[in-house]
Amino acid sequence: MIITIHPQATSEERAHLMSLLCRMTGSQRPISSTQIANREVIALDGGHLDAQAQNLLQQQNAVERVTVVKTPYQLVSRAFKPESTSVVIGKNRDCTSVIVGDTTASPVIMAGPCAVENKEQLMETALAVKEAGAHVLRGGAFKPRTSPYQFQGLGVDGLHLLSDARDETGLPVVTEVMEPEMVEVVAQHADVLQIGARNMQNFPLLNAAGRNSHKRPVLLKRGLSATIDEWLLAAEYIVAAGNPNVILCERGIRSYDPQTRNVLDLTCVPLLQQLTHLPIIVDPSHATGRSELVPVMSRASIAVGASGLIIEVHPDPNTALCDGKQSITPAQLQKIVHESRMLTHMLQGEAALTHVA
Amino acid sequence: MIITIHPQATSEERAHLMSLLCRMTGSQRPISSTQIANREVIALDGGHLDAQAQNLLQQQNAVERVTVVKTPYQLVSRAFKPESTSVVIGKNRDCTSVIVGDTTASPVIMAGPCAVENKEQLMETALAVKEAGAHVLRGGAFKPRTSPYQFQGLGVDGLHLLSDARDETGLPVVTEVMEPEMVEVVAQHADVLQIGARNMQNFPLLNAAGRNSHKRPVLLKRGLSATIDEWLLAAEYIVAAGNPNVILCERGIRSYDPQTRNVLDLTCVPLLQQLTHLPIIVDPSHATGRSELVPVMSRASIAVGASGLIIEVHPDPNTALCDGKQSITPAQLQKIVHESRMLTHMLQGEAALTHVA
Amino acid sequence: MIITIHPQATSEERAHLMSLLCRMTGSQRPISSTQIANREVIALDGGHLDAQAQNLLQQQNAVERVTVVKTPYQLVSRAFKPESTSVVIGKNRDCTSVIVGDTTASPVIMAGPCAVENKEQLMETALAVKEAGAHVLRGGAFKPRTSPYQFQGLGVDGLHLLSDARDETGLPVVTEVMEPEMVEVVAQHADVLQIGARNMQNFPLLNAAGRNSHKRPVLLKRGLSATIDEWLLAAEYIVAAGNPNVILCERGIRSYDPQTRNVLDLTCVPLLQQLTHLPIIVDPSHATGRSELVPVMSRASIAVGASGLIIEVHPDPNTALCDGKQSITPAQLQKIVHESRMLTHMLQGEAALTHVA
Amino acid sequence: MIITIHPQATSEERAHLMSLLCRMTGSQRPISSTQIANREVIALDGGHLDAQAQNLLQQQNAVERVTVVKTPYQLVSRAFKPESTSVVIGKNRDCTSVIVGDTTASPVIMAGPCAVENKEQLMETALAVKEAGAHVLRGGAFKPRTSPYQFQGLGVDGLHLLSDARDETGLPVVTEVMEPEMVEVVAQHADVLQIGARNMQNFPLLNAAGRNSHKRPVLLKRGLSATIDEWLLAAEYIVAAGNPNVILCERGIRSYDPQTRNVLDLTCVPLLQQLTHLPIIVDPSHATGRSELVPVMSRASIAVGASGLIIEVHPDPNTALCDGKQSITPAQLQKIVHESRMLTHMLQGEAALTHVA
Repeated sequence: MIITIHPQATSEERAHLMSLLCRMTGSQRPISSTQIANREVIALDGGHLDAQAQNLLQQQNAVERVTVVKTPYQLVSRAFKPESTSVVIGKNRDCTSVIVGDTTASPVIMAGPCAVENKEQLMETALAVKEAGAHVLRGGAFKPRTSPYQFQGLGVDGLHLLSDARDETGLPVVTEVMEPEMVEVVAQHADVLQIGARNMQNFPLLNAAGRNSHKRPVLLKRGLSATIDEWLLAAEYIVAAGNPNVILCERGIRSYDPQTRNVLDLTCVPLLQQLTHLPIIVDPSHATGRSELVPVMSRASIAVGASGLIIEVHPDPNTALCDGKQSITPAQLQKIVHESRMLTHMLQGEAALTHVA
Repeated sequence: MIITIHPQATSEERAHLMSLLCRMTGSQRPISSTQIANREVIALDGGHLDAQAQNLLQQQNAVERVTVVKTPYQLVSRAFKPESTSVVIGKNRDCTSVIVGDTTASPVIMAGPCAVENKEQLMETALAVKEAGAHVLRGGAFKPRTSPYQFQGLGVDGLHLLSDARDETGLPVVTEVMEPEMVEVVAQHADVLQIGARNMQNFPLLNAAGRNSHKRPVLLKRGLSATIDEWLLAAEYIVAAGNPNVILCERGIRSYDPQTRNVLDLTCVPLLQQLTHLPIIVDPSHATGRSELVPVMSRASIAVGASGLIIEVHPDPNTALCDGKQSITPAQLQKIVHESRMLTHMLQGEAALTHVA
Repeated sequence: MIITIHPQATSEERAHLMSLLCRMTGSQRPISSTQIANREVIALDGGHLDAQAQNLLQQQNAVERVTVVKTPYQLVSRAFKPESTSVVIGKNRDCTSVIVGDTTASPVIMAGPCAVENKEQLMETALAVKEAGAHVLRGGAFKPRTSPYQFQGLGVDGLHLLSDARDETGLPVVTEVMEPEMVEVVAQHADVLQIGARNMQNFPLLNAAGRNSHKRPVLLKRGLSATIDEWLLAAEYIVAAGNPNVILCERGIRSYDPQTRNVLDLTCVPLLQQLTHLPIIVDPSHATGRSELVPVMSRASIAVGASGLIIEVHPDPNTALCDGKQSITPAQLQKIVHESRMLTHMLQGEAALTHVA
Repeated sequence: MIITIHPQATSEERAHLMSLLCRMTGSQRPISSTQIANREVIALDGGHLDAQAQNLLQQQNAVERVTVVKTPYQLVSRAFKPESTSVVIGKNRDCTSVIVGDTTASPVIMAGPCAVENKEQLMETALAVKEAGAHVLRGGAFKPRTSPYQFQGLGVDGLHLLSDARDETGLPVVTEVMEPEMVEVVAQHADVLQIGARNMQNFPLLNAAGRNSHKRPVLLKRGLSATIDEWLLAAEYIVAAGNPNVILCERGIRSYDPQTRNVLDLTCVPLLQQLTHLPIIVDPSHATGRSELVPVMSRASIAVGASGLIIEVHPDPNTALCDGKQSITPAQLQKIVHESRMLTHMLQGEAALTHVA
């Protein structure tokens, strides 16, 4: 259940509503509100509130509207907010801002190395992906690695290098954050906070990302074997904590065939478009784990309506410190950028025709 | 290991080779050969034959070439036959013949009802899918149903109706065969023998389909949770039994999220194109189980390079005796046909440009 | 919905009921009945029959009882038949008959080689497993193999060898049947018809096994990734076709970790005991694929209440033509037999105490 | 590769070794050592070090032994430490200390409510599980919940209640920690730090738990769809960070059948016993999600050799704030404790006999 606060509510009316809600729900923690679609809203697990209670809430002066949403996720549901959400990256920063989820534009291409290895590698890659037409630079400073003996990333030094790369190229930067106490420092340097597949249900991290003081958008990857509902509820944590700027990222789910690293579940893109207003992008690099499959699966991602791609690019994939097998070259990226534009163009033309007809 | 028989081998030389092979492999069953790419070939599990044995074989007059293929599948591997295979449907029959796997043409669209229900329903659908641009009529006469209490299809009567529909529309017909002893009768009426997901490892059925006297092509669906290797080995059964005309069909694999019936593994299309010379088509209806997702996933299937689609269409999906939830209307099919042509056109244009460059 | 025919119904009353049922259900195929728990019963997908129709049926002279069962499976459900079913193996044959599902006795141990390789190997193994305490001899004459180039079994010759082994040892024999037309010949030689995991949804085979003229029991293995419902519906096919003697066999399900061949789902045993009256045994050999894990997982299978085990045993596992890695020796089998008796004893003692208290 | 430091190494020799290692591995982070089996050891990803390098290391005065371990996990491998590890819980605290992994004793039973709800509920449950024979009290103060609108636990207040319950009952306490910065406060109150399935690859949390200043043991649950290797590498993070006291806990893996919450993979217990020296316990409550299956699956867990069980118990499961459906009553727990002792007794007797023979 979602309560939309009336924009003209007085602070007294607001306080009255809050205390009413606390009594009604027996909540031990303070009721928090969030800003979504130009309104302050409060989401509740309304399962226990009957029609009478809803009625009472609706009559409060502070309440503009009470919306009953039947899915476990509330604020992220399209049932609550029918218009698609556009997430702006790099706003008020020294870079070109980029919109993810703008259905009239070409898909947003995020590209860069798996891990930031050193200044030269990062800068070379950053310039190359910009040249190839990418809109956002990706690169890992903190790397979640299966083994403690694998390269763990450069940490804060990596963040500084990413900042420098933004200054140099004008590309906004997306990078992973792995623990709540690092959210602020990552948010300071990066333009998008990435939450990785292994942390999709790291709830303290989701809350921290939702509350980040820089209001950086969050790129939320799907968990290794997360259901659609679990994924949307993870997004709900972030939005309920105060940050409506969430981008979902499909990156393959675990399956039984070792031929590919994961199984890319492209059907989830149109399915999510029914269920949520949040934009969805695809990571064909982690999904396949094989660079030669990345261009084709990028094309398919655009074909199903993804709002963007996040792709691992390395100037020399064979020498990459991490995930070289799945990294493509800048030249391959350029083709992907070109093809994704053509495909979008074709699909938009078709949609326009359908609309006219 | 594959032995290509010399086209000028005498029957004496041939017999000599066969007896040598029996001795070498200790095989209790007669060595069988098959016709592939205009040559008679014999495939063996060559794991036990050493270099000396290979040498000896190579020196036989009956032998044109000995090819060592490292995958468990042999005849279906691209390592053995680098050129893509085109499968011709409806040859020498009273219908328009159709080529699956012709990379210079538009994708082949197979469409029709899940089950043949009666003459009116089938004829109405057949004419409608033809009108919409489909090339092949699909429809189940024998239906593998999870429960014995569900509609099991019209059986042989259904085959007759399908035959009539071919005569009426000129569309060749694909229909499922579920047991070895029915292969001949199904092959008599249908133009393609479909082997369903639940029968992908029904080895007697694969053998029977491989030996069908009408030389009908086989549409081999991927098993519910089959690996790529298992699937290709199932195809190998058919080809080794004498029928090189196999079309692979991805139809989704089992996974953990009930949101969709299966997970459509589109990555398998470009992956299979590396591993095998056989053409691959996609069934978005069974993969998703939701009609509203079929158009988008059809588009994505063409985008990854599928040679065709097989789609459930029903004039009135709500009244279908089986799988109505995943059936689309003829009008939706028409849009898919149109879109798949445009997309193929775009991709071929691009490929041509790449080739020139 | 299940209709129990009154034991004193006249053939006229019976015929009247049948024609009523055909009208009510609009069934195109004749209504078939089966014998279960000393009664003739007819199962129907009663979803479409309303209370009035049920009432009408109940009033027929030929009807003893109408039972509404809410699961998709009917005859195999415990809701229909609360008492556990005991399946007798080797009745009226020249061997010691064995009861699967007798809760007062020790678990039934079925053991033998993966494949029948030759007379010596089979006889040696048969005598050894008998000596070790096994009750039933297993061995494959027809082998479903992933690759056409793997050893496919001795076929009918293997059946003869199994028959001889029964004569020699007095152990009844279980062996796999892979196609409907072989059911009768396999049923002639074997005492239990095994339907393998890959054929769990081979519906013509299930029907044929249900109708086998020798009334041999059927051992139905769980499919590679079959749900409990799908498995019970496969059993329902056999029972509905006239054969109530079905033994379910858990043999592991497909998962993502290559460490073991499959994941043994032991929880399904107590779960099935709630849902069905059919007995359940476990195959730890195929489940794990690793002989060193077979003894421990055998013990656990007995601990969860399995009515028996089916285990691959080879006198010399290293030389086995198939699945040597998962075969144990007769000496290891002997320990399993001993331990399973002790464990059953302990659990029965405990149950007795609980009962007294 | 693991380097065991010589116990008599001087600090100069030690420093020399460290700088040699940094040069050899090009490591940017300081080489850390940990205490295991009474020795200081250093684990390295030795993949890049050749025989010559190994030789050089072996010759250092500070080095007692260089061990090459071929699995990606090193310190947790049985190849490195053949003797099983016993983990002591509640040492030097005001409670009865408990040993997990002592093969001569009965399995350790950990029991209590899913979530700490209030003082009365916790105290009542704590006394009841003690009375029933449990050795350790479990209870969640911080609850990882799929939805932000579900009860999230009492937090630090819950920790205080758990501390009080230990004082009252003498049972040591295990509770979950969800973020690195809470490790110290949880370690102050609890006797075992639980890391939940969703956090199995929360690497900062693993590191923090490994470094906790109270040296509390860590109960590491298997991730939702973690492979054995990934799980052992997660344990390796904790051990490599300085804490050798890790208990593995199997709690079911994700699969496709909604009948049970997860699939309990009991085969992993004997498999892990081959691969690691760490003790393994089982959580049948989360694995099945159905209280009626908990007693049977507890018995099976002991049968496969688990060193203990962790079970959800609630005095009144129907009113539980979380996971009531999977909670058993204290009376049911008592039977499980009794049965697990009898079964262990039987298995130890048998093992003794085998040993004598």
